[in-house]
Amino acid sequence: MNLSELQQLVRDRYFETDNARGIYHTALWFHEEVGELSSAIANNDRENAREEFADVLMWLLTLANLMNIDMEEAISKYLADPGKMPSK
Amino acid sequence: MNLSELQQLVRDRYFETDNARGIYHTALWFHEEVGELSSAIANNDRENAREEFADVLMWLLTLANLMNIDMEEAISKYLADPGKMPSK
Repeated sequence: MNLSELQQLVRDRYFETDNARGIYHTALWFHEEVGELSSAIANNDRENAREEFADVLMWLLTLANLMNIDMEEAISKYLADPGKMPSK
Repeated sequence: MNLSELQQLVRDRYFETDNARGIYHTALWFHEEVGELSSAIANNDRENAREEFADVLMWLLTLANLMNIDMEEAISKYLADPGKMPSK
């Protein structure tokens, strides 16, 4: 599965609705999904977590679309940054 | 850029460190990045947002690795679910 193609699929499926809703309101729905993922992790519920990981990624990609940010480009810059190696 | 390959790259680069830290502690770092992304969106700072979108995705993928969840499989299930169409 290609990340750019997935971001485009998210654009095709959700951009009109999410853009009409607005980015701040859409960001709140993203946060709701982050909370559900946290709940699944805290409960060690892998079946639910699988769903929530997907939900969070899809909402992340729609937010990137609303900000007109190419996620593949963002990741390429991340990977080229020597400061992004394990340290924490 | 392939999602499975990216998840594997994250595994190679971060799994040992993040697994040793533990999933709850790692989840807190993920939340820190979500907060930074929210700040970039709230400030309409696209340059910073590009970095934060990448950070959030990378921490999301490392959390998926710690939960032993294949993100591509999770997304495939999401996309096959007719309930996941725009409604909110």
